Amino acid sequence: MELFFCPQKPVRGLIELCGSEAGHIGRVLRHRPGDMIHVTDGQGNEFEVVLDSVTRERVTGRVGKTCLRPREPRRRVGLAQAVLKGDKFARVCEGATELGISQFIPLRTARTVGRLSEARLARLRQVALAAMKSSTGTVLPEIGPAADLRDLADLRRHYDQTVVAYEDEHSTGLGGVLRSEVDSVLVVVGPEGGFEPDEIALLRTTGAGVFTLGPRRLRAETAGVVAVGAVLQLLGEMC
Amino acid sequence: MELFFCPQKPVRGLIELCGSEAGHIGRVLRHRPGDMIHVTDGQGNEFEVVLDSVTRERVTGRVGKTCLRPREPRRRVGLAQAVLKGDKFARVCEGATELGISQFIPLRTARTVGRLSEARLARLRQVALAAMKSSTGTVLPEIGPAADLRDLADLRRHYDQTVVAYEDEHSTGLGGVLRSEVDSVLVVVGPEGGFEPDEIALLRTTGAGVFTLGPRRLRAETAGVVAVGAVLQLLGEMC
Repeated sequence: MELFFCPQKPVRGLIELCGSEAGHIGRVLRHRPGDMIHVTDGQGNEFEVVLDSVTRERVTGRVGKTCLRPREPRRRVGLAQAVLKGDKFARVCEGATELGISQFIPLRTARTVGRLSEARLARLRQVALAAMKSSTGTVLPEIGPAADLRDLADLRRHYDQTVVAYEDEHSTGLGGVLRSEVDSVLVVVGPEGGFEPDEIALLRTTGAGVFTLGPRRLRAETAGVVAVGAVLQLLGEMC
Repeated sequence: MELFFCPQKPVRGLIELCGSEAGHIGRVLRHRPGDMIHVTDGQGNEFEVVLDSVTRERVTGRVGKTCLRPREPRRRVGLAQAVLKGDKFARVCEGATELGISQFIPLRTARTVGRLSEARLARLRQVALAAMKSSTGTVLPEIGPAADLRDLADLRRHYDQTVVAYEDEHSTGLGGVLRSEVDSVLVVVGPEGGFEPDEIALLRTTGAGVFTLGPRRLRAETAGVVAVGAVLQLLGEMC
């Protein structure tokens, strides 16, 4: 199934796609009036749309059946990931979006060396959009701007639980901190050099569960995606 | 902890590192005689080594304490991943090596489009070596050559169980197929286009457990790393 993106709500049951989405539908896939396509608004809605008119610049259609969050995790999962240099940061955002996060928070910590320019933020949003579509997701993760641990205290209020992957935690695994009954979880992953002990202490005092991903040292990029995957696995969202 | 690689066994308690490892120890890190470093042979041994002599080309030292598999999963996990185009394939190998796989099998399937030249195979081995060292692992995964599903039947004999991630499996998750008492698991992940139904039928008839990673369509690159992580999580190897 190919999924197209249109952030505007349908008007009187009609939907209109322009720009690259229209080009892809008309020029690349050569859809014609009468064909049915699937469109998401990135806010959880998936529309079946029967096409009325198709040009290379503009595609219109009539909305039929609508599904709400057809392939999203039942529990809301966010990822706060310390900013990484280069492509690595976009790759974490990409993998986590495929898995179904609904928020991606670029985090500034003591040892964070990557910077998040407006251009990088715009690129992250493009990557997330492409990852949502390729994974047939219907929720476009809300992304940034960059937050520090103080900002995170506010952002965490929207989640039932916060869990933090920490390489100097040596005994408690994710299963030992994650509460199975939660409706929403924020996963926090540090930068390449890890969190500083006082950052972890701060997170602990505000109720975050600190866990290990095992005795090996994972790159932050691998840790972010693996941690989100492990949370979804333990919450029973991977079947 | 920085970990160096020397595939040769120590001789009479002495170890010798040459080439880039010696350059890194002497020139980059400026170690001196008397310093202690950690060296692995990539076969599970980790040696504490007190340096005797350090030049830019050659470093020698005396082996003290030796640990066997200090940070490896207790259960042996292999990944057979269909060959992917470009850097993506190396990234799967990298992430899975960080997680602690001991074998990486490049797989040829009906819908596999990536080719595995000798140069790519050599590059994969370099990536795995770097990932083993950066993750402080002591087992260098055995890699390739490319295998097809017939070859895989032979390779699978070395594992207690085989589990296959399949996007058209819609009900059974990993927890429904993975046996907790196994000592070794081979994880099989298909190409971007997925396995063909008759390939899955073949794998099923030979006893493989077929599972879903959830209702979304993960890129093969994401699926490989997430599947290995989920196996380790369920086997209790991530704490």
